[in-house]
This record gives sequence, C-alpha cells and structure tokens, in this order.
Amino acid sequence: MTDLPSPNQNPLRLRAAEAIAECRLIATMTEEPGRTTRRFLTPPVAEVHAHLQARMQALGMSATVDAVGNLRGLWQPAGASGKRLILGSHIDTVPDAGAFDGVLGVVLALEWVRLAQELESPLLIEVIAFSEEEGVRYGVPFLGSHAVAGTFDYTLLANVDAAGIRMDDAIRAFGLDPSEIPDAQLGDDLLGFVEIHIEQGPTLEAEGLPLAVVEGIAGQSRFNLRFTGHANHAGTTPMHLRRDALAAAAEWITAVETAARDADDLVATVGKISAAPNAANVIPGVVDLTLDVRHMSNPIRASHVQLFTREAASIAHRRGVQVEWAQKLEEPTVPMDSALSSDLAAAVEAAGFPVRKMPSGAGHDAMIMATRMPAAMLFLRSPGGISHHPDEAVLEQDVEAALRVGGFFLQRLEKQTRS
Amino acid sequence: MTDLPSPNQNPLRLRAAEAIAECRLIATMTEEPGRTTRRFLTPPVAEVHAHLQARMQALGMSATVDAVGNLRGLWQPAGASGKRLILGSHIDTVPDAGAFDGVLGVVLALEWVRLAQELESPLLIEVIAFSEEEGVRYGVPFLGSHAVAGTFDYTLLANVDAAGIRMDDAIRAFGLDPSEIPDAQLGDDLLGFVEIHIEQGPTLEAEGLPLAVVEGIAGQSRFNLRFTGHANHAGTTPMHLRRDALAAAAEWITAVETAARDADDLVATVGKISAAPNAANVIPGVVDLTLDVRHMSNPIRASHVQLFTREAASIAHRRGVQVEWAQKLEEPTVPMDSALSSDLAAAVEAAGFPVRKMPSGAGHDAMIMATRMPAAMLFLRSPGGISHHPDEAVLEQDVEAALRVGGFFLQRLEKQTRS
Repeated sequence: MTDLPSPNQNPLRLRAAEAIAECRLIATMTEEPGRTTRRFLTPPVAEVHAHLQARMQALGMSATVDAVGNLRGLWQPAGASGKRLILGSHIDTVPDAGAFDGVLGVVLALEWVRLAQELESPLLIEVIAFSEEEGVRYGVPFLGSHAVAGTFDYTLLANVDAAGIRMDDAIRAFGLDPSEIPDAQLGDDLLGFVEIHIEQGPTLEAEGLPLAVVEGIAGQSRFNLRFTGHANHAGTTPMHLRRDALAAAAEWITAVETAARDADDLVATVGKISAAPNAANVIPGVVDLTLDVRHMSNPIRASHVQLFTREAASIAHRRGVQVEWAQKLEEPTVPMDSALSSDLAAAVEAAGFPVRKMPSGAGHDAMIMATRMPAAMLFLRSPGGISHHPDEAVLEQDVEAALRVGGFFLQRLEKQTRS
Repeated sequence: MTDLPSPNQNPLRLRAAEAIAECRLIATMTEEPGRTTRRFLTPPVAEVHAHLQARMQALGMSATVDAVGNLRGLWQPAGASGKRLILGSHIDTVPDAGAFDGVLGVVLALEWVRLAQELESPLLIEVIAFSEEEGVRYGVPFLGSHAVAGTFDYTLLANVDAAGIRMDDAIRAFGLDPSEIPDAQLGDDLLGFVEIHIEQGPTLEAEGLPLAVVEGIAGQSRFNLRFTGHANHAGTTPMHLRRDALAAAAEWITAVETAARDADDLVATVGKISAAPNAANVIPGVVDLTLDVRHMSNPIRASHVQLFTREAASIAHRRGVQVEWAQKLEEPTVPMDSALSSDLAAAVEAAGFPVRKMPSGAGHDAMIMATRMPAAMLFLRSPGGISHHPDEAVLEQDVEAALRVGGFFLQRLEKQTRS
C-alpha cells in the first residue's frame, strides 16, 4: 500500500472511505435486526429513500419516488445539454446480504454527480436507486429497471409474496399508485446508462486488478436432466451387470467440467443432484441433475450445450441407461454498448489502471436498461469473490479508483456532447 | 425346454411346480391386502405357522414354535443317527415383497425331508422357519437365527417398533414367553445347516446356470464421506477458480467404479448423495455420499477401501477441497463350511449341473448359523436378478434342479454318517 497516497493527502481516498461507510450505514436499514435483508417496498426501503433523498438534496438535486418505488434524483446544471446520462443500481437485497451489492452503485453514482459538479460539467444526470433487482419478494427480478425501460409486465401486479400480499397492494401500502407505473418510463433524451457494481466473483482479485469494464451479460441456458438405470442390490449385483444411474451421472459431470475448463470464459455448473432410492445399500436407479451454462457468445454457448447433450447420450448409451433433457431457461447474451464501454475503458486507462474487459455471469439492471439506451458497466473487485453474504466487501483503494475513473469518464462524455 | 422331460414324466418337476404354487399361496398371507408384507410376529405369521405346521405333520414331523417365533419341525426316523441336519430359511418379508425370498428355502427344506423319507435315510432332520431375518420391524435382522445359534441380544427386547410396541410385548402378544428364548438354542448334536435361497442378483441368469454353491457371505465395509469446497455463484466464478464439491465427488465416484470393475468379484456402490446448497445457479459447496464395499476376502476388501480413501484424498488435494470419512459398518466375511459345501457341490455335479461357486453379497441366516455349526448354502437363479419386489421369481426347472441336488446330497451325507 506504500505506492498509494495517504488518505489525508488525497480527497478521493477520503470520499472512498466515506462511501464505504455510507454503504455500511444503509446496510443497517433492514427487515431483520442483526442481518441485512431488504426486499422490495418493505419498511426499511423507506428509510433508505429518506437517507438518499437528503443526500440528493444536499447535492442540489431534485428527488422523487416513481410508482414502482425507484428513487430518482435529477442533477440539472445551469446550461445543461439536452440528453441525460443515467447512473444507478438497486437498493433491494437478498436475505442476509452484504452491504455493497447494488447500494455501492447508487452511492458512487451520487459521488460521480459531485465530481460532475466540481468539474462544472454541463451534463444532465439522473441517478436511479432501483427498487427491485434481486427477485426475492415476488420471485421476479428487475421490477425497477423494467418500469424505467418501459418493459414492465403489468400482469405481475397480481402476484402475491410469501405473506399473501399482492404486488399492487404492496405498492399502495408504500404510498404509491400502481396505475402511475407507465409514468416511470424514461423519455428519449438519453445519453446512456452506466452502472457501477461489485464483480461478485473472484476473477479481478485473482488477477490483482481493481476494476473491469463489462462486455455484456452472459447468456444463460439451464436444463434439468434425468439418468434412469436400474435400482439393484448393492451386494448381489456384480459391477459388469449394473445400470447405475449415479455412476453415469458422475461420468457426465466430469465430462462437462473438463469441456468447460477447455473453453475460454465458459462456465458450466451442475448445482443440484438427487438420487433414488438414495439408500446406502441400493444401486441408484434414477438421478436428477441441473445444468447451467453461460457464455458471452450465444453460438459458443449453444455449441457447448450440444456437446454436453451428445456426451450425456453417449455415456447413457454405453452404460445401457436412459437420459432425458428438459430446457428450463434460455436467455441470450445482452452486450453492453461498445461506444459507451469504450469511453469507460478510456477513462480507466486515463486514470492509470489496466483495462480488463470481462463478461458478467450474473444479471444486472444494466441488462434491462440496455434494451432502451446505450448501457455500460464498471465492476469493482470483490475480495474473496464473496457476494450475497455478510462478508461481502470492497477495498477502499478500488472505490477510489472508481471515483478517479468517474472524473475522466464525465470529462470525456462532456467533450463528446459538445462536439 | 425340449431337453427336459414333461411334468407328467417327472415327479420332481411336478413337485417343483407345487413348491412354487405353495410359495405363492404363502405370499397371500400378508399384513397389507394386495401386496406381500409380513413382518416379525405380525398376524399373517400365525397363518404361515398354521399352514407349515400342517405340512410338517403330514410328513410325520413334530412341529413346535419356539419363544422367538421360529417354527421348528423335527423328522426323527426310526433308527435315527445322533447328529441332526438343520435345514431352513426365514418366513418374514420386506414390505411389498416377492414370494420366494426366504419362504422358498423353507418349502424346499420340507421337500428335502420328503426325499429323505423316500430314500429311507436314517438322518435326523430339523426344519426351521426363522421368524425374522429382514430387520424390518425392529431395525435389527436375524432375530430368529440368533436365538437358535445362542447369540440373541436380550437388550433388543426393549426395542420398540414404528407403532411403539416393545419386542417383548410383541412376543407375548403372539402367545409366546420371551423368558424362554434361551430354550430356542440348539444343542451340540449338530451335523450342520443348509439354507436354500434365491440368488437375489443377476449372475446365474447372466451365465445361464440354475444353481450355485455359496462360498461365504461377503464382508462389508460402509462409509459416509463428505467433500467440502466453496459454494459460489455459478455465473461469476470461472472454472479455474472453483472449488466444486460435486465435481470432486463425481470424479471420485468414477474412480471407485473403475477400480471396482478392475477387481475380481468386488462390488463398490455409492448409493446416497446430497449436495448443498443444492441450487441450480450455485456451485455445490458440500456433498455427502455413502460408500458400500463388499468382497469375500477381508484383505482384498480392506486394500480397496484404502485405495478409495487415497483416491478421495488425492482428488480433494488437487482440487483444493476437503474430504472427511466416517466408517459406519465393518462386517468381516463369513465363510461357509468347506466340507459341507464340498458335499453340496458334489451333489450338484452328481445331479448333472455345472458347479458354480459364488460369494453372497447379501446377508443370510446361514451367516449366523455358521457361528455355531458347519453351514452351507445353495443359490437358485433369480430371473432378471429381481428381489425385494413383487416381480421376484424362480424357474420351475431350477426348483426341480434343487430337489435333484437334495436327493444326492442327503445320500452323500447319510454315507458319511454311517462311515
């Protein structure tokens, strides 16, 4: 750490420390004492709104809550240019969450507004604290960004949560009017959307890098598989006369892992497994599995899914067992905007950091916003790769790096809008 | 089937058909209408006793029920030699059982007595229909044969079944006196014990053979294993940074299967598996498994257990995951008596069948009786390798073969006792 200036020599380092402290303060606004759980439109969301609204007003921004519960702060400088830059991330959390997934992107968006003010930038900036991204309360993610992008599914308003509360009633109970959700949609005066988020994976830490520019949200294919053999007595059935569904599944899991390792940037995961009859002295007759495959390239993902399917069929055939597939999910890749991402990459370089481009294996609000405007994302290193856990963290030096990048990015954008 | 005489030319074939019919009749004596379930000392056991007692009396045998519920029939010919030959198997079943596991050995024991009578053999023969072998009602198997062998564990009398009924109360409710269990023990005038049983595996069918002489009950080692890695996001954790407990377990399952296939007559089974958190989009952090290893040679079984342990440790080490082992069972091999088994093998040969010797991978009453006297077993082919299932079957021609073997075996034994 000796190559970095001490905090009192460097105002951005101080602001980074403050931003982290603010995220940790927001993490205390929770449904459950002692751990951070903040689902869509629950009471602590109002606390977060009050806190951020005060912050926005202190920055001279106007602050309103739209009908789906997004807090929206507008910075309108004197002589603002016509198109607006949207910054933001979400303020809901998973159960027993960390302090940074989502919230960090809102807090740093406000810091970027402060930088824009200090740079006397004429950029019109809207900061959005999306009300819902994790999909915990109603089982459907991205409610906030869908409303802003104009792709909200109104049939969801009849969905009920675990307590039996309909979504439209939850919106009304929060003091909002669900019939006004269409008004949450942005107009056409859009420069683009930038989301700052923790990586939630171990890659940047493994490579010793603070930041990455996200190339896109990797497409995802998900399947249920079943191997069916013959359940038989573990003591009386010789090895060569078995049709062991678990042995078949195990061979296939290893084949999937081997092929995924050989492919660049592909991830393939068998996350669920169950065997029947699941008794220590009976050869498994049926094994159920899931397969989750993600890659930035839709054709590469599709060809690997085919490879995994062929491999399963070949293993099953050789062993005299059956295999069945059912596709449960097929989400194509959402690329980030190449021009806006190049601007972000140029700012990373100007700030003195190596430019690492990487896909996001997880979904983000930027994926929804990208359907409406140019979108880009900046990832911050996740220590230990930990996320969705109280141990989730960020490094002060990485937050400082994100602030430094913000300054260069805003200057670059301002120049472009002027030219 | 053209090489076999038609039933009306061959009395043994007719008796075989009758024996099968008798087993199927006994299968209708059940706790559950429509399927065969007959646990220790439940009401249908009394029906079976009544049926078999009548059969014994028709053969001129005395028939009594001992204090643990074994039905015991004694054939005492005029001028009987001092030592007695014990024949038998069990009459309890698993839930939803077939008609032959256990019962066939009792029915054929009575047929062997009939053969002894026809041969005018002076052998003293006791047929025992053991009351309990499967361990279903009280979770502990071999209650009947333990009482006969003098190795009954009296602390079990306080065990309760699923309905909360103590074992001693169940014995009293059946009209028996648990304090008389010590009297069930056999004296010292013992020639040996022979059990006829279905194979319950696919080996004889695969080899096209009707019968086998059992070399012994294979020893068994059973373990619980746990692989512990790191649960991580399936989308954001690249393949090379994963510590996937399921991928480790899968590699090990394949290694166990491969090594077991390479070893003669060894069986190794992973029958149970569970993963945590067991979600399609999370890399498994913990996987629990069972391992069941059986082989006739205790040293070969032990060396393979060591090999599987080393393999797990090596896979875990290479992958940066942990593995823990806990042994749950260690039962050494119980060899059958070599002299009595040779007599049985000689009878198989004399009857015109190939002599196939094989281990039993499942436990049998003969295993308990072997602690007290020379014991031997004769296996009959199991069509489809099916057992513990309503589809359990035997072939008429194989039952006929077992009767033919009985005649030669009894003659051989009589000659030996005379000399």
